[in-house]
Amino acid sequence: MATANSALANGCDNGPSPGRLSSVYSEVQTSRLNHPLPLPSVLKGHFKLVDGPPSSAAGNPDEIAKLFPNLFGQPSAKVVPTGSDPSDSAGSLKIGVVLSGGQAPGGHNVISGIFDYLQERAKGSILYGFKGGPAGIMKCKYVQLTPEFIYPYRNQGGFDMICSGRDKIETPEQFKQAEETAVKLDLDGLVVIGGDDSNTNACLLAENFRQKNLKTRVIGCPKTIDGDLKCKEVPTSFGFDTACKIYSEMIGNVMTDARSTGKYYHFVRLMGRAASHITLECALQTHPNIAIIGEEVAAKKQTLKNVTDYITNIICKRAELGYNYGVILIPEGLIDFIPEVQQLIAELNEILAHDVVDKEGLWKKKLQHQSQLLFEFLPQAIQEQLLLERDPHGNVQVAKIETEKMLISMVETELEKRKLEGTYSGHFKGQSHFFGYEGRCGLPTNFDATYCYALGYGAGVLLRSGKTGLISSVGNLSAAVEEWTVGGTALTSLMDVERRHGKFKPVIKKAMVELEGAPFGKFASMRDEWALKNRYISPGPIQFMGPGSGDVNHTLLLELGAQA
Amino acid sequence: MATANSALANGCDNGPSPGRLSSVYSEVQTSRLNHPLPLPSVLKGHFKLVDGPPSSAAGNPDEIAKLFPNLFGQPSAKVVPTGSDPSDSAGSLKIGVVLSGGQAPGGHNVISGIFDYLQERAKGSILYGFKGGPAGIMKCKYVQLTPEFIYPYRNQGGFDMICSGRDKIETPEQFKQAEETAVKLDLDGLVVIGGDDSNTNACLLAENFRQKNLKTRVIGCPKTIDGDLKCKEVPTSFGFDTACKIYSEMIGNVMTDARSTGKYYHFVRLMGRAASHITLECALQTHPNIAIIGEEVAAKKQTLKNVTDYITNIICKRAELGYNYGVILIPEGLIDFIPEVQQLIAELNEILAHDVVDKEGLWKKKLQHQSQLLFEFLPQAIQEQLLLERDPHGNVQVAKIETEKMLISMVETELEKRKLEGTYSGHFKGQSHFFGYEGRCGLPTNFDATYCYALGYGAGVLLRSGKTGLISSVGNLSAAVEEWTVGGTALTSLMDVERRHGKFKPVIKKAMVELEGAPFGKFASMRDEWALKNRYISPGPIQFMGPGSGDVNHTLLLELGAQA
Repeated sequence: MATANSALANGCDNGPSPGRLSSVYSEVQTSRLNHPLPLPSVLKGHFKLVDGPPSSAAGNPDEIAKLFPNLFGQPSAKVVPTGSDPSDSAGSLKIGVVLSGGQAPGGHNVISGIFDYLQERAKGSILYGFKGGPAGIMKCKYVQLTPEFIYPYRNQGGFDMICSGRDKIETPEQFKQAEETAVKLDLDGLVVIGGDDSNTNACLLAENFRQKNLKTRVIGCPKTIDGDLKCKEVPTSFGFDTACKIYSEMIGNVMTDARSTGKYYHFVRLMGRAASHITLECALQTHPNIAIIGEEVAAKKQTLKNVTDYITNIICKRAELGYNYGVILIPEGLIDFIPEVQQLIAELNEILAHDVVDKEGLWKKKLQHQSQLLFEFLPQAIQEQLLLERDPHGNVQVAKIETEKMLISMVETELEKRKLEGTYSGHFKGQSHFFGYEGRCGLPTNFDATYCYALGYGAGVLLRSGKTGLISSVGNLSAAVEEWTVGGTALTSLMDVERRHGKFKPVIKKAMVELEGAPFGKFASMRDEWALKNRYISPGPIQFMGPGSGDVNHTLLLELGAQA
Repeated sequence: MATANSALANGCDNGPSPGRLSSVYSEVQTSRLNHPLPLPSVLKGHFKLVDGPPSSAAGNPDEIAKLFPNLFGQPSAKVVPTGSDPSDSAGSLKIGVVLSGGQAPGGHNVISGIFDYLQERAKGSILYGFKGGPAGIMKCKYVQLTPEFIYPYRNQGGFDMICSGRDKIETPEQFKQAEETAVKLDLDGLVVIGGDDSNTNACLLAENFRQKNLKTRVIGCPKTIDGDLKCKEVPTSFGFDTACKIYSEMIGNVMTDARSTGKYYHFVRLMGRAASHITLECALQTHPNIAIIGEEVAAKKQTLKNVTDYITNIICKRAELGYNYGVILIPEGLIDFIPEVQQLIAELNEILAHDVVDKEGLWKKKLQHQSQLLFEFLPQAIQEQLLLERDPHGNVQVAKIETEKMLISMVETELEKRKLEGTYSGHFKGQSHFFGYEGRCGLPTNFDATYCYALGYGAGVLLRSGKTGLISSVGNLSAAVEEWTVGGTALTSLMDVERRHGKFKPVIKKAMVELEGAPFGKFASMRDEWALKNRYISPGPIQFMGPGSGDVNHTLLLELGAQA
């Protein structure tokens, strides 16, 4: 049975949390509650939705058409001003909203945006928050959102208003459960706030509801700190701006420390498993001596030895200049980009599933020659991690490998070798850092707060107009908020297919760092200077008022062709 | 040969750094350069120094009197307003300044304060910055500070203007070198910016110069993020405010993440080796579920098992309430506070200096029974760390022990036991964090920026008046800046002696967390509520303008009897 509208409980499914209302707020948190959120001009007066031309798919349109017979080809839509609002006469709506996947700063503002749209433009509407992610839809666990319930979460970080979850609605039974909830709550619409997977799922749900002739429409919203859900119409995913600024604050502090102390190399691993956008953005914000971009490592088919040598060479050159310190940024997913490491892990998974690791190391002979060499090249601690830390399926837990410590150890070994050869005479001390959880739930920057609010408000407009299978799209982001564009993009137009278990599966491809793109181009043009000269920038803490409070991240500005 | 006054080189001794002038600044950094620094009213008009009564020592005054025959008993001094400045007619001065020990936000502002005092009140004066810490004094490596040189460092973090170092001036030869530098540069005074050790050293230097009839006076300034250099006249050390706010921002973010995700226990180790002030202050700012205060562990003679059980018990109670997440703060120096661990390490140092660690573990029989039990109780990774990671003297490297990971592992083991016993049925996943280097070089808060400026300006006043062996003291800090008091406290009055190698050594005792003090009292009165209910506060990023930008840390306010 669902619990609805208890103002004292937050919407999470992980216990009877007292929620925010019983919390004491810091002065900054309190000040953010009443921070006014400007809307794009087009959302302030009367407006209507205008459809664009029919859409296709990012790849394999024929297969996408088969997978989405009801939605494929539908146009994207744009909000334009009009003399009088044609939907002014429409009645109230019942809408559900769900947070899906990992946290990103600004999620609460998307919900606030939907809510305020309904309050202002569709009086009498009801907004349900599904608790704990998509599982909340399937189990029909929800909370009815009220002004009092939402208020303490305005402009605040985290997803704790209704919490998130990583379940997916995939099987026929699960789709059935979702249908039952939609019918039971008489939902006109559902907003799915999530990353690439969740938006693919949202589109499947939209297709399914349409096929079953349910009235429930589904709209997606682009969320992920990783920054890898974006396209022409969706210039960035929310949370990326805040997370990168939090990490860059810390990196800037560590840089100043490195320069002041003069004796440490700081190896900073940054969250962002699949793509290296976070590492690239932090590099553009702070100018580290080295930043490894996974996509480049993959494109150049580099080995772990290549990466180690690249770092070691710069450390040696710096030592000659008298610098025995520095800051090096490493993307969390680095080893996923190195083919030989993938190969080794695949072989280890196979061998360790069947064989015992004998103390004499005879098991190693089962590795292919190349993998054997790589294994021996790895520091002992990493070797042990590969052999011991296994998930319940017996697989190596790649995410648990502390890449920054591994690189420190490998660089150390290489430097010792060079010392013996007489080609290096500096001092090397590595310090490791991992910045991840610190950035997922920070107070959203002014940019993320405003962007999310517009995404939510726009999602309300799309639902009110009867749209489904679109992702809320706010554009022209390098201009003033007033000039931002608002609309929806056909989710099928972002899709391609992947072959899994003999079947075509629709996927929104992750947007990886483009080596031909402007952000990487700028980085590549400056990194040699950063490597040897110290061009460190300390962005400082995120400001909500005064200088710096209106800054937008470099990646977005460069991609939009603006001056970063 | 010294290099003086190159505006393009920073003052560090670790290479030909291009310094700040060639750096690009972030918008926030730039805005801080021109941030106006208010002075206490007493420093704005005409003022004079008034001496207090003769002073004694913190302990063993007879021994301190023997160690400081020229300085012992001298009064502290206070700046008071006067009709006309009696020193207005005095000439120019030659002053040196040195940064000693680890970085703390605000060091650059102390130097700015001294410089501005000399510019405004002793025209024609010269300020030398000794490079790379006390070694710069001994080697006579310095840079002459000019308005152009200082400007890029105003209100900026780090110590890179002249850099710091950990050398000490201790031996007769080293004192001789310092004398030579003082004579060579014709120094009227020297300001030593440092922690307890550095200020003890400053006092020895003052005594030595006085004894040799040199004109060079020495004034100390209280620096350390650890917050353990303080007394009645010196209510706080600079840097503590900024560092704690940076760590608290991160802790608050991690708390919101914990609540949103609902499945992780975050174990956060915080810098601050000797005392637990940082952990206590961060607890007061953020309200974690658990914070371990080393001084309490020591006072209650707790074992590692006691600490583990305390954490585990709370985790079990929270699981019963439905919470399988939480945030736990741990001071870096925790294991230094646990007598049994100290005993084990002492025995290990002894055994491993002479014996081989045999694979069969026969060596363990040489441990005392209690230590043997403790060793077996430790997680395997920590056992290995104790056996393998040794410094060049063969001693266990206590600082390298990742206490947070050790506790996660021990809690895990204990919870598994309870699961088998049927007394725990929750889910436990630990995430470890260490916040340290991120906080030492942040942009100083408005409080630290202003406090440091007053400390520096006040040090100038003390030197101009011919004072020596005092520590710059700015008080009444819970009031508005205008009402702050300014003066100097006799360093000998802070001292006691310790017996080392059969000799009495003077020491300024570290100010540990007082279990009878107001900050710990407030924490102790609230922690049971924090443990089971979630009272998390997210302080957010440090603000330089608007709400929160004038906040002072809780520890200081509580100790001053003000409402935190």
